[in-house]
Amino acid sequence: MRVRHTRIVGAGLIGTSIGLALRSHGISVDIVDSDPRAEAIASDLLASPTINDPVDLVILATPISALATVIESEFSLNPQASFIDVASVKIKPLLDMQASNLPAQQFLPTHPMAGREVGGAESARGDLFRDRPWIIDPSGVDGQTLERGREVIALCGATIYELPASEHDRAVALISHLPQLTASLLAAKLTDAPSQWLELAGGGLRDTTRIAASDARLWGEIIAANASAIKPLLLSMKEELATLIINIDNPRSVENFITKGNVGRAHIPGKHGGAARSYTQLPVIIEDKPGQLAALFDECDSAGVNVEDISIEHSPGQLTGLVLLSLSAEHAVVLEKHLATLGWAVHSPRGGK
Amino acid sequence: MRVRHTRIVGAGLIGTSIGLALRSHGISVDIVDSDPRAEAIASDLLASPTINDPVDLVILATPISALATVIESEFSLNPQASFIDVASVKIKPLLDMQASNLPAQQFLPTHPMAGREVGGAESARGDLFRDRPWIIDPSGVDGQTLERGREVIALCGATIYELPASEHDRAVALISHLPQLTASLLAAKLTDAPSQWLELAGGGLRDTTRIAASDARLWGEIIAANASAIKPLLLSMKEELATLIINIDNPRSVENFITKGNVGRAHIPGKHGGAARSYTQLPVIIEDKPGQLAALFDECDSAGVNVEDISIEHSPGQLTGLVLLSLSAEHAVVLEKHLATLGWAVHSPRGGK
Repeated sequence: MRVRHTRIVGAGLIGTSIGLALRSHGISVDIVDSDPRAEAIASDLLASPTINDPVDLVILATPISALATVIESEFSLNPQASFIDVASVKIKPLLDMQASNLPAQQFLPTHPMAGREVGGAESARGDLFRDRPWIIDPSGVDGQTLERGREVIALCGATIYELPASEHDRAVALISHLPQLTASLLAAKLTDAPSQWLELAGGGLRDTTRIAASDARLWGEIIAANASAIKPLLLSMKEELATLIINIDNPRSVENFITKGNVGRAHIPGKHGGAARSYTQLPVIIEDKPGQLAALFDECDSAGVNVEDISIEHSPGQLTGLVLLSLSAEHAVVLEKHLATLGWAVHSPRGGK
Repeated sequence: MRVRHTRIVGAGLIGTSIGLALRSHGISVDIVDSDPRAEAIASDLLASPTINDPVDLVILATPISALATVIESEFSLNPQASFIDVASVKIKPLLDMQASNLPAQQFLPTHPMAGREVGGAESARGDLFRDRPWIIDPSGVDGQTLERGREVIALCGATIYELPASEHDRAVALISHLPQLTASLLAAKLTDAPSQWLELAGGGLRDTTRIAASDARLWGEIIAANASAIKPLLLSMKEELATLIINIDNPRSVENFITKGNVGRAHIPGKHGGAARSYTQLPVIIEDKPGQLAALFDECDSAGVNVEDISIEHSPGQLTGLVLLSLSAEHAVVLEKHLATLGWAVHSPRGGK
């Protein structure tokens, strides 16, 4: 049975964005909020026709502190409907549900892993969840509720991950809540800095503090609701900070500290992570004149090697450019010899890291 | 007297990038490195003709730990030349110079505020410094050395800031070294995380840990050389972390903590900072059909208001879009009334933050 009529409680970024995605698939969506302005903007955005079909799915998209009350009132309004929540923690909503009249099998706890530093209905986008993970904990949930929850997530274009609520809370403590607190901790140190110093700031400071601009009330609730999972991480961070302080004037100790960060960073998958980069890189320097790249690729063909990837370091006005060819280790040896024989400025290769 | 013949000691990212910029302005550049491979790549990239003119400027672009030795040997090679360094700290090179034969007035301490997470001659770019700050401390430096240093910086396209060495070191401790250590501290916590958890990571974790991929040996030296400026910052960070841990289950306390981060983050100037955003934002919802935006701007003209900026929240498949018009507070009131009368879905404005 497909979802036909959804009720979304909470017209913030997440609730309104889900509404936009569902509307683009023709589903009727009522959206309500305790703030009349947010409700009006979201309702105009959704432009949903009024229908008489009963509500088959209620999406709870309120702040965490409102969940307990909202579960009660929404269940009495639509006792036959399925319910999902979208809170950033998962144990707390389960406890709220258990303390309410809502039967456990009618409630699917979920968490869409998407957001923006800007909040509110004004920032909503129908594609906010596209290709993003959306976690569910289906244990003890009835087939109909699970099916409806999965359908909504699919219509939002997200990818479903199943994770028990307690593991979810430990995972987000590490990959989401700890980065938020760390960015805020760092950003707070900028408050009293002379403005001339901050004019010198580069991309490093900007990136490291970007999420420090996040909504303080929202995050205060999320983090306090996940305190038990976050606390051990903060305690170990504090210990490592203490050790760093003791050894801060020792280049080797600081190098080891930074190296540990290198290792952790490389564990993040994706194009900036450490996965799948096992090619050898062969540097070739070419002059900035027409036909050089084409000639280089002709030689790769002649040598019978496969170039898996290429990057070019060159900027306007620069007289030469460095081409990094990514190949298998064997092909790199072949191509280096081939190009060197022909007089190209080729240099000894470097293994992928 | 213009710089004609430069010698760069250290064929890493910074030295080679300076060389590329100077070469694009026709200056002869010799580049040397203790690593023959780096020297060969950089020399090929620079493709500089051999000239017999004496070296008029030596640019010291070695690791910090090599500076003391290199200053001695380079001064004995070219005792008439001017010298600049490009190290990320400024007190340490001054101490090295004072302990050497190089006279203080022949040495301009400088720091180009540019870099990449990737290092080495292979990553060099002639435009690395364009529009970036380049700090100098001209106190006690002779006119000729200062002029040559300024010329090189101008040819690299950078902007000169004057800052005494001790203030420089305190500034970079805050805006560069502390973010590096914070990112590394956070990233190190990921080392033992289950890979499924890291697959869920979003842009927040990626951005906050991006610079954790930086060169560990290079940064070990930089940070240890600036230990006295960094230590008080780390100590106060540790205290704030301890207070956070005590109150981690209190939503209000965590909210205050995040708010302090909001305030610090807003002090960073630029498009993501807090400056110059005093416009009122008027939200208007339009349907996704041709001519809607044009019609909206016709109405802005009719109402006689100036639209200072516009942002559109809309994604493919979404049936409606939200247009945020930035205007003066007075014009926002006028336009809201005008559009509402004509039946546009306009909502009450919100002041700039």
